[in-house]
Amino acid sequence: MGWTHANPGAPMSVTAKLADLETPALLLDCRQLQVNLQLMKDRARDLGVTLRPHAKTAKSIPILELAVDASCRITVSTLKEAEAAFAAGFSDILYAVGIAPNKLRRVLDLRRAGCDLCVVLDNVEAARAVSRAAREAELALPVMIEIDTDGHRAGIKPEAEDLIAVASALEAPAVLKGVMTHAGESYGCDAPAALQAIAELERAGAVRAAERLRAAGHACPEVSVGSTPTALSAVSLEGVTELRAGVYMFFDLVMAGIGVCATDQIALSVLTTVIGHQAGAGRLIVDAGWMAMSRDRGTAKQKQDQGYGLVQGHEDLIILDANQEHGLVGRRDGAALDLSAWPIGSLLRILPNHACATAAQYGHYDLIGLEQGPATWPRFSGW
Amino acid sequence: MGWTHANPGAPMSVTAKLADLETPALLLDCRQLQVNLQLMKDRARDLGVTLRPHAKTAKSIPILELAVDASCRITVSTLKEAEAAFAAGFSDILYAVGIAPNKLRRVLDLRRAGCDLCVVLDNVEAARAVSRAAREAELALPVMIEIDTDGHRAGIKPEAEDLIAVASALEAPAVLKGVMTHAGESYGCDAPAALQAIAELERAGAVRAAERLRAAGHACPEVSVGSTPTALSAVSLEGVTELRAGVYMFFDLVMAGIGVCATDQIALSVLTTVIGHQAGAGRLIVDAGWMAMSRDRGTAKQKQDQGYGLVQGHEDLIILDANQEHGLVGRRDGAALDLSAWPIGSLLRILPNHACATAAQYGHYDLIGLEQGPATWPRFSGW
Repeated sequence: MGWTHANPGAPMSVTAKLADLETPALLLDCRQLQVNLQLMKDRARDLGVTLRPHAKTAKSIPILELAVDASCRITVSTLKEAEAAFAAGFSDILYAVGIAPNKLRRVLDLRRAGCDLCVVLDNVEAARAVSRAAREAELALPVMIEIDTDGHRAGIKPEAEDLIAVASALEAPAVLKGVMTHAGESYGCDAPAALQAIAELERAGAVRAAERLRAAGHACPEVSVGSTPTALSAVSLEGVTELRAGVYMFFDLVMAGIGVCATDQIALSVLTTVIGHQAGAGRLIVDAGWMAMSRDRGTAKQKQDQGYGLVQGHEDLIILDANQEHGLVGRRDGAALDLSAWPIGSLLRILPNHACATAAQYGHYDLIGLEQGPATWPRFSGW
Repeated sequence: MGWTHANPGAPMSVTAKLADLETPALLLDCRQLQVNLQLMKDRARDLGVTLRPHAKTAKSIPILELAVDASCRITVSTLKEAEAAFAAGFSDILYAVGIAPNKLRRVLDLRRAGCDLCVVLDNVEAARAVSRAAREAELALPVMIEIDTDGHRAGIKPEAEDLIAVASALEAPAVLKGVMTHAGESYGCDAPAALQAIAELERAGAVRAAERLRAAGHACPEVSVGSTPTALSAVSLEGVTELRAGVYMFFDLVMAGIGVCATDQIALSVLTTVIGHQAGAGRLIVDAGWMAMSRDRGTAKQKQDQGYGLVQGHEDLIILDANQEHGLVGRRDGAALDLSAWPIGSLLRILPNHACATAAQYGHYDLIGLEQGPATWPRFSGW
């Protein structure tokens, strides 16, 4: 990996580093990252499944390299992620968003170059388009059928008649590799029992769909499930072969609100500077607005609304409102802050609502928690 | 400019171009862009002020080149914008976010290289830090004091005692260039009379602050005001020298909700593909999620909530919900769509809530509305 850990409890070098950065900056605590990555590796091992980490949160090759298990499988949400990962040596890649016809050219270019890229679909029209494109390119093209176990967005219900029709519409050299599902509704839970129930719904639905396909004569070797909340809540993944998740790498305030992490497990934060005071209201103006935090307000519907982010180490302070390059920091109860404690130029670290959205605003991570090693890791973006 | 307009009402080449694009893609209608740019040039001329367009929305050199008037002044929200613009030949640049001490090195590097960059501040500590840094660097550093005319975020109230203290804290080679304000509260209006009133508040407050500074013996040549809503609503800008605005270049659904444009004046849209159907609910799954649209929900508090964006040409269809790479399109009244009209692979164009936030998700614009010329314009991002 090329770097070693800082001593626990030795923030000296971190503090020195922060004072040297320009703000806003996206900080990644590499010690906490490693703890989070190990947590999910242990979960997958304990549940008897292969881990297929999702690149959509980190979008960074060094992080993917640390996240994978020995199988080196990954998941992506864009072909940009797939191309970047393949260029870095990853080959077994699941593109987990329903395939659009206009993306098949790039998909087949990757297959032709030797990337074992698998696409996802949930309807007969797409199955026909994929089969036709694979035939014309004379390239094998593995396909997973997306299963909808909770009505969240895409996919076929496990019991739907269409399921068999979609599989039957796939023609060589397109080939059914398996089924996949994503229990997106888990993001609306905040109790362990509800999370366990939705994880079981996810598992049972995906396994049931695979069984129906097999009974109809279709080979369906892979059963892929996942979301960070269900991955951390499932009691059993019997019948499942692989687990997908992404946001656990960093965790965030939404995950803390759901109850699958504590705020001190969040590895990602935004470093910001106090650039002004609202003297009357007792609030701080900082240089982290929505461009630095993203517009994500994922905690707005949770029990604890964190505004545009929580000031690390100060549970009562949040970004109350955000303009493009201005954040307004104040007490969540509306009382005035003692501004003398926060002079102009003070640095704050803000924990994000949604790590995927906040990280997407940056071109690189500034690394902390390392004794030696690189100062930054690059991120990719776009499609 | 190197390109000519397409014939009005001749969408043939546009349609052909759209079918060739991968989705999601950020489309910029160059004909509408030019109309919008001319609108604000005319406003500034009619109001007797210089236009200083804001780079924060477009973040693209070719667009800035079309947007400026003969004075070639621009506004930026980040030093990245300033550096990119200076490299492209712009010199008179206002960095309109309160200066943080850790950014002064880059500010002074730009000054040293010949860029006439001006910084903004609203407190004595920052005035002292700026004066010290300018003195140490032996570089003149023009400063504008930010005035708060509507309690929106940063700035000193026009009547505050501190105003004179801040100006007095500036020491050569730092020099007071003027005052600036931004009537951010205008974004909460939707009636012409209210917009006119807040524009007058902005004008009168900035002029009053300048008069107080001049009466106290400070030269204060520039009085800079602006926001797209107030720029388009002000009846008089007497005493003002320059006007700043950015989002008018593209307009967006928030501006339409405020009432300063119609939806057919919006030059920016996101091209997306139907990748699935929710058959029971009569909804479409498209490949424009929040990564393509941004998480901005700026119309949520307006009379007409546009979800994550409005389907162009279909006033009843919006993106009802969004995941990272999935959008859920349906009727705003909740009724089921006739899905047969929207087969898999259909292309939709989505008008954004907030052009600044949506455009920030992309590395370039795909240009439409041109007979000939470039296919794309690049964007920059980060700080």
